[in-house]
Amino acid sequence: MEINYVIDTFFALFAMVLIILMVPGFAMLEAGLVRTKNVTSVLTVNVMIYAIASLAFMLIGYEYAFGSWDHQDAMSKYAFFLFQMAFVGKVVNIMSGGVSERSRILPLALFTVAVGAFIYPTIVNITWGANFLSGTMLDISAMHDLAGSTVIHSTGGWALLAAILIMGPRRGRFKKNGQVQVIPASNIPLVTLGAFLLWIGWFGFNGGSVGAISSKENADAVALTIMNTNTAGLVGAITAWLLTYFRYKKFDITMILNGALGGLVAITAGPDLYDIHTPMLIGAIGGALVVLFVPIFDKLKMDDPVGALSVHLVNGIWGTLAVGIFASDVSILVQLKGILIVGAIVFPISWITIYAINKVFTLRAEDDEQLEGIDAIECGMEAYPEFKRSI
Amino acid sequence: MEINYVIDTFFALFAMVLIILMVPGFAMLEAGLVRTKNVTSVLTVNVMIYAIASLAFMLIGYEYAFGSWDHQDAMSKYAFFLFQMAFVGKVVNIMSGGVSERSRILPLALFTVAVGAFIYPTIVNITWGANFLSGTMLDISAMHDLAGSTVIHSTGGWALLAAILIMGPRRGRFKKNGQVQVIPASNIPLVTLGAFLLWIGWFGFNGGSVGAISSKENADAVALTIMNTNTAGLVGAITAWLLTYFRYKKFDITMILNGALGGLVAITAGPDLYDIHTPMLIGAIGGALVVLFVPIFDKLKMDDPVGALSVHLVNGIWGTLAVGIFASDVSILVQLKGILIVGAIVFPISWITIYAINKVFTLRAEDDEQLEGIDAIECGMEAYPEFKRSI
Amino acid sequence: MEINYVIDTFFALFAMVLIILMVPGFAMLEAGLVRTKNVTSVLTVNVMIYAIASLAFMLIGYEYAFGSWDHQDAMSKYAFFLFQMAFVGKVVNIMSGGVSERSRILPLALFTVAVGAFIYPTIVNITWGANFLSGTMLDISAMHDLAGSTVIHSTGGWALLAAILIMGPRRGRFKKNGQVQVIPASNIPLVTLGAFLLWIGWFGFNGGSVGAISSKENADAVALTIMNTNTAGLVGAITAWLLTYFRYKKFDITMILNGALGGLVAITAGPDLYDIHTPMLIGAIGGALVVLFVPIFDKLKMDDPVGALSVHLVNGIWGTLAVGIFASDVSILVQLKGILIVGAIVFPISWITIYAINKVFTLRAEDDEQLEGIDAIECGMEAYPEFKRSI
Repeated sequence: MEINYVIDTFFALFAMVLIILMVPGFAMLEAGLVRTKNVTSVLTVNVMIYAIASLAFMLIGYEYAFGSWDHQDAMSKYAFFLFQMAFVGKVVNIMSGGVSERSRILPLALFTVAVGAFIYPTIVNITWGANFLSGTMLDISAMHDLAGSTVIHSTGGWALLAAILIMGPRRGRFKKNGQVQVIPASNIPLVTLGAFLLWIGWFGFNGGSVGAISSKENADAVALTIMNTNTAGLVGAITAWLLTYFRYKKFDITMILNGALGGLVAITAGPDLYDIHTPMLIGAIGGALVVLFVPIFDKLKMDDPVGALSVHLVNGIWGTLAVGIFASDVSILVQLKGILIVGAIVFPISWITIYAINKVFTLRAEDDEQLEGIDAIECGMEAYPEFKRSI
Repeated sequence: MEINYVIDTFFALFAMVLIILMVPGFAMLEAGLVRTKNVTSVLTVNVMIYAIASLAFMLIGYEYAFGSWDHQDAMSKYAFFLFQMAFVGKVVNIMSGGVSERSRILPLALFTVAVGAFIYPTIVNITWGANFLSGTMLDISAMHDLAGSTVIHSTGGWALLAAILIMGPRRGRFKKNGQVQVIPASNIPLVTLGAFLLWIGWFGFNGGSVGAISSKENADAVALTIMNTNTAGLVGAITAWLLTYFRYKKFDITMILNGALGGLVAITAGPDLYDIHTPMLIGAIGGALVVLFVPIFDKLKMDDPVGALSVHLVNGIWGTLAVGIFASDVSILVQLKGILIVGAIVFPISWITIYAINKVFTLRAEDDEQLEGIDAIECGMEAYPEFKRSI
Repeated sequence: MEINYVIDTFFALFAMVLIILMVPGFAMLEAGLVRTKNVTSVLTVNVMIYAIASLAFMLIGYEYAFGSWDHQDAMSKYAFFLFQMAFVGKVVNIMSGGVSERSRILPLALFTVAVGAFIYPTIVNITWGANFLSGTMLDISAMHDLAGSTVIHSTGGWALLAAILIMGPRRGRFKKNGQVQVIPASNIPLVTLGAFLLWIGWFGFNGGSVGAISSKENADAVALTIMNTNTAGLVGAITAWLLTYFRYKKFDITMILNGALGGLVAITAGPDLYDIHTPMLIGAIGGALVVLFVPIFDKLKMDDPVGALSVHLVNGIWGTLAVGIFASDVSILVQLKGILIVGAIVFPISWITIYAINKVFTLRAEDDEQLEGIDAIECGMEAYPEFKRSI
């Protein structure tokens, strides 16, 4: 009916706007977490990711992912496109955030084209889209991943893993004696603002992924999805707080916020499936995994300034498995198969792409350039030129 | 009808998202108003308030307030819950902001549990909810308080009053010779951003409190409510500007923004009732009360770094009375009774709770800890570690 | 039908909220672009513009523009008003941003009254409104300007041009030897945040200007409008990036973001008319015009700290002409006539108004006041009082 078409179009646009709030969300989060000498370049990367990934998806990736612009007629095809387009940049944001403070901008822009036009659309194709693996042994379309614990977050996480392995850590991050050099976040209000914009964007991300709101059943599903999404974030934050507080007797806001984000990633695969208590457990484990894995990746000398591996890759996997554990009709084996096949596609393709880009265009900034700061080298512009720095 | 259920669910989710924008709104406002040495702890408190108050309300407070999760069937019960849940943290935000720069985090977290699970739900119960006072002499459900001038803002204000009386002022705020030490805000852009996020959130707060948008009558009521809300904010800002400008010949942006917030608090009890001119008067008085009461509380040596007593308690009372003055069918005595009973419940319970928490867990940071800054003591993390400080 | 009335009211409120996000958007953008010594005054101006312009429009301008509050009955008249009111301040924001760092606050407030009550409503009257020029030779209501490339952006741009001609450049901006003194932006994260809030607000600006969403046809038009709006922003950003990068081998984020804004201004006249490729061309030219005109205005010694002439005036004109070039049913002569008549009204009226205000109240701060900073002179309050400054 026309009225359903109208309402679902409106709802998709509402959800899309919330997701676009995640663009400044990621930008502020990352700008707050890095040192001031790298803030302008981090922001530049965030702007370019949104511009390039969205355009590449519009021109190439979208049709590849879904087969055509006209594959559905329940809402305006433009609204459906906008909602899908809003997701793309997030995958690169996850990757770029984790290689902050040591990456050059132009090579990142090239990798963004690859993700927006090809890598991410491939994963959408085989999960939510046209599915060229349909009927083969590798078909994973039965995996339940409502809003992308695997499709978005693990995909970004695998790309980041490849990038970290190729690029190595920041200059001075791991000392010769094995010690980890703590590099404090430069602007905590920006970190907080960014995390909350992401949190709010998540309501559009997950709520919009229900796909429609125009029936009673759908309206209930959307509201339940948003409630469960929020619950997992709340409990993720509280869990990370308690774990860090009991260990260090200090309140670590960056860990608390990453705990919230971990819970949000973990719930993303199935926020429509649970009663109101299961998301607490999923979010608690999500927050705990962040607290657990951040030092593990440090021990492995995998340098990830924003904790993206723990938040997005580890919790993307956990959240997808959790659907198999807690939802009655979903098999954990199907979920596991989906996780593995996505990883088996994204990791090697990302590795090869990043390796090639790094060879030709030098993705990694030299140590002395890192010392000076990426802003000076790449942007010729400081983020806060008037403030005297003590570091 | 199903379509009304759908539209009202969608509208409640829209309103809820706007209110959640107030979470970063309060966080940025307060982070901008306090000194840099206390910014991280203020932000940590804001994050924890959202997480803890929301969860306590979900697990305990909500059913206590409304009797059951199924007390209405005009929209998704999850959407109705989310809209109500979005309010809870605000009550604690009001209180925590006013005791910034001298409070420890863990005791505040404990008080947050008390507010989210018990104190705020008690007030909702007797006003908008199940009403255990129904039929008694103390029944105040006839009070018109659309979106909470009393239920939210005075409640937070009474709790803050109790906290200020128990905790005393910040170190060095009131000198022995009676002079008030001016402590400037550390980051004016954050104050401005926060105030505007609050302002925008208010559209959801008040507009959503109409409860439905799916009939012509309701659509008009929602739009009128949002217009009147905005008008009171506009005039509150202009009034505070004129009063401070004529007195000091300077433009005081923190007073202008607090004037806007004062107008917004004052209109909150009855934005659905007035023509387009009455909100100007209510907002003007709201803004004036802020300018008037901020120095009064200073004279009383009640130290409130963000002006929350003037904005929320004074204007919460004024706005509730204003409905009795300006709305034709509402008795000012009924309004006054509501104000008094809410105060008579919230103030003593908050006082006892905070007193007990302070005794056991020491809510107030020691003077030498305040001198060093709460961030160093409680968080081990500076908000802006790389910037040299002149103060 | 009632349901259309409801949905279109809801949609107008949604669009209005997005546009109000542009209030902190402009505030953060400008606060980030100016030097720290002028940040508080820039923010104060932004707050006062929203308050004063909105109130003047409500009390005087709105009826003048549209003839009456009851000129339409397809949605709540209050929602229609709110949507229109959300536009007004933008016109003054464009002007005030371009004269930052050298203007006093009170005279700007007076000019804001003139714009909100009279200048902007005059332009709305003859384009979208009651049209007192109807039937005369000067009738320009046939101009297609969906959301205001001319009505909003050129109008603000003409006012700014008048102001710059009257006020002259900032102290020290143009040296005696003809060199241009580069004055770096003080806070790049704020610039980025502000630009994205503007970008997101644009979805409401342009999408809402379709006027309704409650039929299939309208829903498609709204979604197409938002998609095309976004596309022009994406390509504007990428074009500005490529042009500056190939010239300077650096990534200039302020130019990239102004390129995006230029593309967004340019698409605003006709985002509902094009297929998905035309907005790329319009946005590319929009971004290029920003890169081209910023140094041209510098050569002309027209000092515009935020690039508003290039973004809003040049692209307002370009976008309006573009409709005549690319849309099949729109004559470029009609578009040109509209552009010229709006300029012929706004520029002289603004010039006279600003000239008179400057004579009586001294709009321009003295050179030694500029050296000290407008914050100290006008506000008595620094934006970041605790940070040591190196400049």
